[in-house]
Amino acid sequence: MPEITETLEKIKSLAESKNIRELRAITEDMNDADIADAIEQLEPEERVVLFRALSRDMAAEVFAHLIPDTKEALVSQLTAPELGRIVDELFLDDAADLAEELPADVVNRILANASPETRRGINQLLQYQEDSAGSIMTTEYISLRPDMNVEESFRHIREVGTDKETLYTCYVTDPKGILIGVVTVRTMLLSQYADKIGDIMTDSNLITVNTNDDREKVTEIFQKYDFMAVPVVDSLNHLVGIVTVDDAMEVLEEESTEDFHKMAAMLPMDEPYLSMGVGELARKRVIWLMVLMISATLSGSILNHYQSVFAALPALIASIPMLMDTGGNAGSQSSTLVIRGIAVGELKLRDAFTVLFKEIRVSLIVGGGLAFVNFFYKYAMSGDWLLSLTVGISLFATVIFAQTVGGMLPLLAKSLGFDPALMAAPIVTTIVDAGSLTMYFAVASQIMNVGSV
Amino acid sequence: MPEITETLEKIKSLAESKNIRELRAITEDMNDADIADAIEQLEPEERVVLFRALSRDMAAEVFAHLIPDTKEALVSQLTAPELGRIVDELFLDDAADLAEELPADVVNRILANASPETRRGINQLLQYQEDSAGSIMTTEYISLRPDMNVEESFRHIREVGTDKETLYTCYVTDPKGILIGVVTVRTMLLSQYADKIGDIMTDSNLITVNTNDDREKVTEIFQKYDFMAVPVVDSLNHLVGIVTVDDAMEVLEEESTEDFHKMAAMLPMDEPYLSMGVGELARKRVIWLMVLMISATLSGSILNHYQSVFAALPALIASIPMLMDTGGNAGSQSSTLVIRGIAVGELKLRDAFTVLFKEIRVSLIVGGGLAFVNFFYKYAMSGDWLLSLTVGISLFATVIFAQTVGGMLPLLAKSLGFDPALMAAPIVTTIVDAGSLTMYFAVASQIMNVGSV
Repeated sequence: MPEITETLEKIKSLAESKNIRELRAITEDMNDADIADAIEQLEPEERVVLFRALSRDMAAEVFAHLIPDTKEALVSQLTAPELGRIVDELFLDDAADLAEELPADVVNRILANASPETRRGINQLLQYQEDSAGSIMTTEYISLRPDMNVEESFRHIREVGTDKETLYTCYVTDPKGILIGVVTVRTMLLSQYADKIGDIMTDSNLITVNTNDDREKVTEIFQKYDFMAVPVVDSLNHLVGIVTVDDAMEVLEEESTEDFHKMAAMLPMDEPYLSMGVGELARKRVIWLMVLMISATLSGSILNHYQSVFAALPALIASIPMLMDTGGNAGSQSSTLVIRGIAVGELKLRDAFTVLFKEIRVSLIVGGGLAFVNFFYKYAMSGDWLLSLTVGISLFATVIFAQTVGGMLPLLAKSLGFDPALMAAPIVTTIVDAGSLTMYFAVASQIMNVGSV
Repeated sequence: MPEITETLEKIKSLAESKNIRELRAITEDMNDADIADAIEQLEPEERVVLFRALSRDMAAEVFAHLIPDTKEALVSQLTAPELGRIVDELFLDDAADLAEELPADVVNRILANASPETRRGINQLLQYQEDSAGSIMTTEYISLRPDMNVEESFRHIREVGTDKETLYTCYVTDPKGILIGVVTVRTMLLSQYADKIGDIMTDSNLITVNTNDDREKVTEIFQKYDFMAVPVVDSLNHLVGIVTVDDAMEVLEEESTEDFHKMAAMLPMDEPYLSMGVGELARKRVIWLMVLMISATLSGSILNHYQSVFAALPALIASIPMLMDTGGNAGSQSSTLVIRGIAVGELKLRDAFTVLFKEIRVSLIVGGGLAFVNFFYKYAMSGDWLLSLTVGISLFATVIFAQTVGGMLPLLAKSLGFDPALMAAPIVTTIVDAGSLTMYFAVASQIMNVGSV
């Protein structure tokens, strides 16, 4: 977008010359996310100048869009009153996120400058466990009474709405704070002004989550129902907060990212790559590599065990990488399909036999095709048809073994209460390697008349 | 959820006894997505009974939630007028999706029964390219004029709103249909009834997408800005449709799934695992396996090349699986991080040097740690410290090579205009295998005094 770059150049030069007035005029028409982008690309001194040029509520919204490193730097540059104003303007859940992602001393400085009310709200949100529904909810929602009519509700929304993260879904509670109904602005707009909320609200089969539910449950609800927000209740059904669709979308993205990390044998990371330290990145990676490295020595001892076979027929060695790689790839295909199927809710434990039966049939076709091509390729290269037959049959068996194991392991993990995403390519490959090498030597000793040890 | 299962049992027995009245009473209070779930679990004859018990607009909403197979079966069971009523009640983008996912003869039967207006709408949506913004938009949005005030706008919304997929974001167009502004119901609710739309609408820096833009551009906008809907315009800036946040969320999920598939060396699939045929599943998997199988013979020929080394020192063979697996895993960690970073917009081409520098430093730590542990483990197992040193040094070099290559390949692919997700574990593993074996023999010939060929 050439227009954006031009604007950035202009902002840069205005910030350098500290032209606050012009800066405010330019940014007034810009979107918060775009201003945040611009800030990320400025020098630290220019950042503060631009930031100070923003109107108060704009400043809070832009701040929420910045990456953790920039937030931290900016917090250290702002005066205490400036900081207090921003935190008070932030939506409570954004303020609580801030408290989770910044170092403790910075958080203390922020909390010290917030109003008592904001501080109480942040602390309340912070007490919920990480990755729980409570930790991603906001306590700023609109609640209505069943005896209000639509016109009164609109007036109420106009009075209290500015601070609320969403006002499109309103919640109806009884005097004790128990959730008794939900009504959308859509419903209200399509009703008459005199209609009572109690008559037009939805009051049965309300979909709610508990504060302690896993946040994945929240995203599942958003994927199943087309809601704008989901109410969060405590164990006594008191309404304590809501999760809005934009926050759920962020969680969905984070959960996918975590699955990608786990499936590549890493501990999941929730910070962007660029802001993670080298030591942290190394720590997240080395643990699983270590476990898998030790496990892979199993395949090594299988090779050791068959040393005499190699000695008699060294040509067998050349196909080992192809067998190992193809087995690993075939197994990771199946495990990826099943892990992802479980993650998006398409596959359940009850489908295990369907998956098993399907994987066996698919692997017969895939393995057959690969073995067929491999046989002729190997024969063309080596001219040895017994060797080509040995490799072909082993490949066929390897693919069947790999896809069956790859498809079953994630379901097995789930049935034992583990995360299916851990049963991905790396572990499947290690297991399939050992299996494929054993089969290879078994086939070779049958076909090529080399005795096993 | 025990409550749901109980309801399902009840629905089943009512459907068996064709008790339409009771069925309608039960489903009236249920959510569309839950009714759809129930339908999926019924026998074909029971399905129709339940479906006929639903109110007209409920039937359409439930229908949109069914999986393609069930839709197809149901279409064949319904009468022509029943079908026509459902299609006319569907939101246009859902109807168009239906036309895309069902076989041609079923689609023709549906189109034949739709009203001329619906048919025109569906056909218009069908003409946009798959995966374009036009293909996921709906043409059912609310448009306002700048000289209307808030009260008039609310009245207008009440009149036309029932058919619109979202009414929270309204679009302001000039008499030629050119988009001149956007106003949310939030803004209207927080304004006075007499305020003019032209005065309260946002009319600068409007974020729009073009009908031909890739649908990924739409999800990027939703991830960056907290919008409920994004307007879709043609090349002359005429407003032609909108994409709502719930549809964008579905696209986001599909795009992640496609990345998972590509990264596991499969052609991407957009149907659920359970509804795909065995032949189709095999076809999606066999192509890349074939390519990678042929590529893996490169590593085989490296082993062939060094046959004399094995002959002299067969103990070297046992570490080959560990080296290959660890190299593959280490490389796939880096490529996964970078591919995912690019996908969520955290990493750009301009970060290539930062990534390179970071991967080198991380791999020095990770490789060093692994080599250190491996050296002592190998020494404890074999008692041969020259062999242990050879394996340790090779492992160190392999990890550095793997993580550098794994981190760089996706960025290289992107810079050449290819999909970074293709440069994942399978290809990285194949490349790293060849590299690690070469290094292994180079190190062995230096340290263990076995001449290379």
